[in-house]
Amino acid sequence: MSGDRAAGENAPPGHGGRGGRRERGTRNTGAATPPMPRLVNRFNPVDILSPEQVERILDAAFTLLETDGMKILSPRAREAYRRHGAMVDEESRIVRLGRDIVEAMLATAPSSFVLHARNPARDLHVGGHVVNFGPVNGAPNIRDLDRGRRYGDIEGFRDILRITNGLGLLHWQGGVVVEPVDVPVPVRHLEMYRAHIELSDLVWAARGVGGVQARDALALSAIEHGTSVEALAERPTLMTVTNVNSPRVVDEEILDNIMTMAGHGQCVVITPFTLMGAMAPVTLAGALVQQTAEACAIIALCQMLRPGAPCVMGGFTSNVDMKTGSPAFGTPEYVNAALATAQIARRLGVPVRTSAVNASPAPDAQATWETSFSLWAAIMSHSHLINHAAGWLEGGLSASLEKIVIDAELLRGWAEILKPIEFGDDELALDAIRGVAPGGHFFGSPHTLARYENAFYRPILSDWSNYENWRDAGERTATDRALDIWKKTRDAYVPPPLDPAVREAVDAYIARRTEEELVPGTR
Amino acid sequence: MSGDRAAGENAPPGHGGRGGRRERGTRNTGAATPPMPRLVNRFNPVDILSPEQVERILDAAFTLLETDGMKILSPRAREAYRRHGAMVDEESRIVRLGRDIVEAMLATAPSSFVLHARNPARDLHVGGHVVNFGPVNGAPNIRDLDRGRRYGDIEGFRDILRITNGLGLLHWQGGVVVEPVDVPVPVRHLEMYRAHIELSDLVWAARGVGGVQARDALALSAIEHGTSVEALAERPTLMTVTNVNSPRVVDEEILDNIMTMAGHGQCVVITPFTLMGAMAPVTLAGALVQQTAEACAIIALCQMLRPGAPCVMGGFTSNVDMKTGSPAFGTPEYVNAALATAQIARRLGVPVRTSAVNASPAPDAQATWETSFSLWAAIMSHSHLINHAAGWLEGGLSASLEKIVIDAELLRGWAEILKPIEFGDDELALDAIRGVAPGGHFFGSPHTLARYENAFYRPILSDWSNYENWRDAGERTATDRALDIWKKTRDAYVPPPLDPAVREAVDAYIARRTEEELVPGTR
Repeated sequence: MSGDRAAGENAPPGHGGRGGRRERGTRNTGAATPPMPRLVNRFNPVDILSPEQVERILDAAFTLLETDGMKILSPRAREAYRRHGAMVDEESRIVRLGRDIVEAMLATAPSSFVLHARNPARDLHVGGHVVNFGPVNGAPNIRDLDRGRRYGDIEGFRDILRITNGLGLLHWQGGVVVEPVDVPVPVRHLEMYRAHIELSDLVWAARGVGGVQARDALALSAIEHGTSVEALAERPTLMTVTNVNSPRVVDEEILDNIMTMAGHGQCVVITPFTLMGAMAPVTLAGALVQQTAEACAIIALCQMLRPGAPCVMGGFTSNVDMKTGSPAFGTPEYVNAALATAQIARRLGVPVRTSAVNASPAPDAQATWETSFSLWAAIMSHSHLINHAAGWLEGGLSASLEKIVIDAELLRGWAEILKPIEFGDDELALDAIRGVAPGGHFFGSPHTLARYENAFYRPILSDWSNYENWRDAGERTATDRALDIWKKTRDAYVPPPLDPAVREAVDAYIARRTEEELVPGTR
Repeated sequence: MSGDRAAGENAPPGHGGRGGRRERGTRNTGAATPPMPRLVNRFNPVDILSPEQVERILDAAFTLLETDGMKILSPRAREAYRRHGAMVDEESRIVRLGRDIVEAMLATAPSSFVLHARNPARDLHVGGHVVNFGPVNGAPNIRDLDRGRRYGDIEGFRDILRITNGLGLLHWQGGVVVEPVDVPVPVRHLEMYRAHIELSDLVWAARGVGGVQARDALALSAIEHGTSVEALAERPTLMTVTNVNSPRVVDEEILDNIMTMAGHGQCVVITPFTLMGAMAPVTLAGALVQQTAEACAIIALCQMLRPGAPCVMGGFTSNVDMKTGSPAFGTPEYVNAALATAQIARRLGVPVRTSAVNASPAPDAQATWETSFSLWAAIMSHSHLINHAAGWLEGGLSASLEKIVIDAELLRGWAEILKPIEFGDDELALDAIRGVAPGGHFFGSPHTLARYENAFYRPILSDWSNYENWRDAGERTATDRALDIWKKTRDAYVPPPLDPAVREAVDAYIARRTEEELVPGTR
């Protein structure tokens, strides 16, 4: 399914590096650059609301849940709400939640937790001051400078995993990094999960819609981790990243997905889709009220099903172009919404997810400044999960391979900025300064020579050559150069080790489930 | 001198908008977009050093000034240092400064001050929490997509003023926005000053080198403000933005400039040129020690000449590419250096200048992420003057007209983000949310309709159209589209009003000085 590059991708450790182009990869991780370390935010969070403003938003959100509630399209979910004291109107399917219920449920949601990766060194720590990056999610199209824009396919899906892992960018592997429309819908999620397990050893995400999709993710994650689905509940490995059908509706497929995951103790990342002026009020405060209400309703449901289930409050509030209705991202409105979302989540004691997003039609300067703004806000807000941080383009309609490489420079730059600054007398360098005459230079200073090789961050895409050299090399922009880098990274990628028995069990499970889904009468 | 666009540029207020293309400009300001308001930073500064680390850097810097000092190439400056207790070695021209002297001099430097603009509404407030943007400075080349890269000229110089003012981007007008090499060196500064006075009513900067250049700036500023050079000292109007010849040398031309300006009570922005591994130690701490020492030595000199003279501590510390020696900007090292510089200046009680800089060979994604990083650091460090914030490219070797427009989006976006968030019950929008059925939309909500026109920041360059529309419109990147915007802005620009008598006096002064400089025996 994954094409010829897949052959040998799961060779045992120490064997992957033998053949041809794979020699360029680091043997066991496949990373062309060192993998992203765990990042701890050393800065104070940037608060944008006064404490009183936070309380006013919360009060309005809780009032909304009490008086107007949410339309909950799953009978099973309504039953859970009802059992925990909510007012449920079966005819309108509206669930009204008292604030005492919401607050009691939020109190059982953990403020931090760990999702376990197959590689224990890459466990995903969610909460506290840890910053995590994830890739583009849910794009229907894939594009690159060579092949243009086209529907996503499974080979493109696998390429995105190879490139993001090869560049060592991410803290979790994502879910639907692009929609592989060449795979039949009933088994599409199975091929995505296979790719995640084969090509990476990070935490991955279930598809965020459907109960079947959640159950298959649980089964395959249990196989990957050599354990049972039941045991996963005590040692969670998965997340599901899903939305509310804003305003104030959650459909049955999403609820099945959420309830299956939360019921099995896996992480639910719930993100209302609250574009200001479209699916939410045109005002920031109003959109935050609605976003907070919607997210709280779902976190409460998760806690009703399994107290202590790991949940993350997502924020996706942004504005739209009021002339066309097109969504906008990386705008000042997005920045304010992300900062405010994290502040509200901190007050509620739940981890928060925002995104590094843009609405640019091309992987150009616009894509870069919009992403820079949203990434700045996501990091300085102390968001714990920063989604769409590699490869997202066109407001999410495309995954761009060149954009992954541009984002690599942003993410790796931030990772460097987040490192603590430490120095001693050697770094204060008084003797080195004294050793260079006024007007001299430090290139040949012993202090420089002893340190220069590792003194500075090494970019992978930046070109600092002079204009003449750049011109003579063909005047290639950063986007042009990104094409070379993703190709080389993809071709050099060596997946991490995978126990052959696990691989066999994964393949067997997927073969059986594929037959059930695709052969009439098998199931 | 300024070409045909200059004709009629100084028509009295109310008359500028009559002819043809000028009708598009806002009549009195020439701004195609509203001028940048005074920005007050509502965020806490991002501190990167511990208080102990700040003290260690200061202690090392003061030690360096005591034990090794600075090479000061002006006899007049050495004499001023000597008179104030410094140890001066006339043979080596080394000046050693005790920390008691440095601290006493720093104590007289104001922590905030105002530079007066011809338009009092645009006075430049330096210090406190005010954030100010200035343009590219000192570039020898100018480039744009139509005409490529070429040496700067006076018409390009004037175009940069038209575009930055037309877009309403800046808080001060800059000095050498590009080097007009078509104007003979002895009178080049005069033509630059003429352009500043004719085309804008913001604070402008003297050329940062030379005593003559400073004296001509003082004379012309006095004419512009209808006052005397002596009176300017009590109501300063000018800044000079200049460098140290790092490591630890200041040449006579720079010192003449600094002493003339400080002696007349004008603002001296002193920025050591401390690229790590080249003109300063390869370590951040070491570069900061040297930068701090060099800046403090010059601020002390300014205070010796005129206690209370407005001074700004500049930081330009960044890294170099250790393979080629090329300077790098917008790197994690630059971010750290900018944040630390501002923290040190805060401790010393003097305002601080950093920059929004990049080292990209093209106005592309790289230029944008590097600028985004450095701008983020400059703003969140609470830098008071952010230099090079519009149009800087190639590490300062070119002023790019397209980059001005890209930077416009960054600067205007930040200006929006810095606005305080205020809301009441109407903005909390509970009734509006109740008025939209679950699953409905807010496009037609009265709450939206009453607000949508001014609800959101309006970008000037972002394209949020869908892929198909963008493709059918020619697949133009943000950089391509920036070309249209600067042309339109330049052509539509209407300069602010200038009293015809002032203009006449300015022209007469420049005519006389030009003759003195260019005609043998006149002076």
